[in-house]
Amino acid sequence: MNQRNLDGNSFIIRLEMTTKDIKFGEVASAISEAGGDIIAIDVISTNQDVSVRDLTVAVTDAQDNSKIIEGVRQLKGATIINVSDRTFLLHLGGKIEVTPKTPIHNREDLSRVYTPDVARVCSAISEEPGKAFSLTIKRNTVAVVSDGSAVLGLGNIGPRAAMPVMEGKAMLFKQFAGVDAFPICLDTQDTEEIIRTVKAISPAFGGINLEDISSPRCFEIERRLNEELDIPVFHDDQHGTAVVLYAGLINALKLVGKSITDVKIVVCGIGAAGVACSNILLSAGASRVVGVDREGALVRTKAYENEVWSDYAARTNPELETGSLREVIRGADVFIGLSRGNLLTREDVQTMAADPIVFAMANPVPEIMPSVVEDIVAVMATGRSDYPNQINNVLCFPGMFRAVLDCRASEINEEMKLAAAQAIASAISDEERTRYYIIPSVFNDKIVKSMRSRVIEAAVKTGVARRIPREQAREGGEV
Amino acid sequence: MNQRNLDGNSFIIRLEMTTKDIKFGEVASAISEAGGDIIAIDVISTNQDVSVRDLTVAVTDAQDNSKIIEGVRQLKGATIINVSDRTFLLHLGGKIEVTPKTPIHNREDLSRVYTPDVARVCSAISEEPGKAFSLTIKRNTVAVVSDGSAVLGLGNIGPRAAMPVMEGKAMLFKQFAGVDAFPICLDTQDTEEIIRTVKAISPAFGGINLEDISSPRCFEIERRLNEELDIPVFHDDQHGTAVVLYAGLINALKLVGKSITDVKIVVCGIGAAGVACSNILLSAGASRVVGVDREGALVRTKAYENEVWSDYAARTNPELETGSLREVIRGADVFIGLSRGNLLTREDVQTMAADPIVFAMANPVPEIMPSVVEDIVAVMATGRSDYPNQINNVLCFPGMFRAVLDCRASEINEEMKLAAAQAIASAISDEERTRYYIIPSVFNDKIVKSMRSRVIEAAVKTGVARRIPREQAREGGEV
Repeated sequence: MNQRNLDGNSFIIRLEMTTKDIKFGEVASAISEAGGDIIAIDVISTNQDVSVRDLTVAVTDAQDNSKIIEGVRQLKGATIINVSDRTFLLHLGGKIEVTPKTPIHNREDLSRVYTPDVARVCSAISEEPGKAFSLTIKRNTVAVVSDGSAVLGLGNIGPRAAMPVMEGKAMLFKQFAGVDAFPICLDTQDTEEIIRTVKAISPAFGGINLEDISSPRCFEIERRLNEELDIPVFHDDQHGTAVVLYAGLINALKLVGKSITDVKIVVCGIGAAGVACSNILLSAGASRVVGVDREGALVRTKAYENEVWSDYAARTNPELETGSLREVIRGADVFIGLSRGNLLTREDVQTMAADPIVFAMANPVPEIMPSVVEDIVAVMATGRSDYPNQINNVLCFPGMFRAVLDCRASEINEEMKLAAAQAIASAISDEERTRYYIIPSVFNDKIVKSMRSRVIEAAVKTGVARRIPREQAREGGEV
Repeated sequence: MNQRNLDGNSFIIRLEMTTKDIKFGEVASAISEAGGDIIAIDVISTNQDVSVRDLTVAVTDAQDNSKIIEGVRQLKGATIINVSDRTFLLHLGGKIEVTPKTPIHNREDLSRVYTPDVARVCSAISEEPGKAFSLTIKRNTVAVVSDGSAVLGLGNIGPRAAMPVMEGKAMLFKQFAGVDAFPICLDTQDTEEIIRTVKAISPAFGGINLEDISSPRCFEIERRLNEELDIPVFHDDQHGTAVVLYAGLINALKLVGKSITDVKIVVCGIGAAGVACSNILLSAGASRVVGVDREGALVRTKAYENEVWSDYAARTNPELETGSLREVIRGADVFIGLSRGNLLTREDVQTMAADPIVFAMANPVPEIMPSVVEDIVAVMATGRSDYPNQINNVLCFPGMFRAVLDCRASEINEEMKLAAAQAIASAISDEERTRYYIIPSVFNDKIVKSMRSRVIEAAVKTGVARRIPREQAREGGEV
């Protein structure tokens, strides 16, 4: 219950002790001698012969950890089952909590927020269901929905193991944009069941952020939910990536003095993110997009079992290029990688047009390491935080949902995504923009505000906003 | 976004203004002259002819409200659409929020709670799913699930309108017991669909609190979920009521010097709560329980279409009494009403055994008003807060879920409910106990702690606890 106490340098040793061989005092002495201070003991199980305890040990210096562990390890009758470090400690009991906005001190407070007075609020919503958007958490709350089928680089680890990611996302929503988000990790990977479940739980939410759902199910799930719900549904792995990618490309193209309408763009990896990235580029006016996957360039003259590919080919590759990545990369202005590590070579990049732009976003290993082509690319971006120009979804989803909640958008359309990308891109001024700075930091606190304003404007223009926030109305919006 | 500012004396006027007839300045003047201070203006819609705005008006004295409203009402070209009072203002934007337990200040924080470090925590859970109970919010989080089919006295008002109750409940969970609770209001009233949905979303939760689901679906839903999930499922309208009722009865029986095993108890209203209350009394040793509903006393010699009634009759009424409430109440020691207002008369109570105990819990109007029988009953309790001895579920659910989360109980069994009732009852000492004080206040802050300890003890004894908290283990628990 008090994991806050653990935020300093502390860690937990799960220890099995055989009763006849060792007394707890000996363990305590060993830890103390090695510089640790036991601040909590949790008995996990105990019987006459063996007891298992979690010892929370505070240390003044993180380097003491190994000394302490070594000290305990040498004790006869004590076996270390597990040691949790700071990251694990931060996760103890979960990373988010649900808190009342106002305290309940007395009977009067209780009557207002609960029975009997709450009945009047319920009745008001019952008479006019739209009031749920103002009188309940639907006003400000997003479901972060995952089935755990494609989590980070870990793959299909299931809903329980996906929770830490979704909780982390909920933290970011709140911290960066004041949005309340709650993780809904689904114990099913059946498309219809997921659709049914999300629809069933939708009354509490003003938006749905789909997360880490594998392709191709993610397409159908998002499409159907968008059709069948009156709140926006946004698969972040697709559209969040697309928005941030396009933001980066806006600045990269400015640096090299090229226009999106002219450049040849090769997108490598036509899965969920590849399709979404291509779509936003097409919406932005790109005409020469060529997708490449395991079967080479996707082209409408070929037949694909994968419907997503057929549809993709029909909308791209106007010059009907064929062949491998190595072949179609020739003469390209932009490479966008959403595939896997080390797929692109220096020689490939050398065949690109002048001032090549390379976005190698495979994680954790990019399609080509920046060090390999630093000297021959004009601009380079990756998905990694240890290189310049990280394409990071955190730049998009907080501001995007801040906007759609505030204008009660019924959906998130292409115009709104383009507006979000513009907001990110323009956080970097003409003076600031360099080949190492085309994407702002995720800690840039101006982005959410600017994205909110631009996205709401786009939502109002395209007729999907059901409410115009005060300051936006002042600028002349009309419903 | 800033509803906190509205906590003082303030209210909101939704005003429609026709552009040609009135300027906003005139409205502002009228409000100001009547003693109000406009602290926010939200434009709801606007066009060339008409604009609708929400004016948030602060007042120093709540009595100014009507003066201000009257002043605005008299303006030509301004029409008041709606006025929200303090209860509604408290509900603006919802009553709960989802907050990070630790702030994300910098890249290091971000790496720990989100990518890339979070992957290690995900992997740990993937390898050992039980770790979700310690490394995610499952440790401390309950879903408050409703389909909005039987909300308060309002009936079937649906999931959106049920939200304020569930949010209120989440507030109480946190404030009274530190339990994180999140409202899941379901857009379906189909039994199978509800079961499927709750199962699908269960990975995030350590317990399920079912709420305001109508009978008889609530029985099947609770039974099936308890069978199919490994976390406790508790329909509060049934078992919360039963626990608090039995707590009150323990003290009432002590006052009149009777034993639960001897007394004749008439339960009026054999719906969800009536069944649960009877069950806990039977578990506690009651042998002479007679249920009464629209068809009179339920008795095993009769056939009922309602399966719940047949099952109930088979387990109760050993003397095979028949007839109306008026007939079976004769000679009863205890009346328990969970039906509707004014069903019981003073004459009925006069036919009860000496020192009658009357629990008239119909809401908002009890089966008999306390004033009607005050002089002839030994002890009286109702569901109302404006009479002594309120049977209020708030006394049970926070402590109950605190206990089951802390010991990772797989279910909530009868022994645990009895233990919870004992905890509530014993909050009142022998010296304190009077006919007007058999139930402690919901603000009694000792109850959660004592209930937690007793319920965990019962969970350990009955083998449903999967973890023994440290202080409980110290008292000698063994797994």
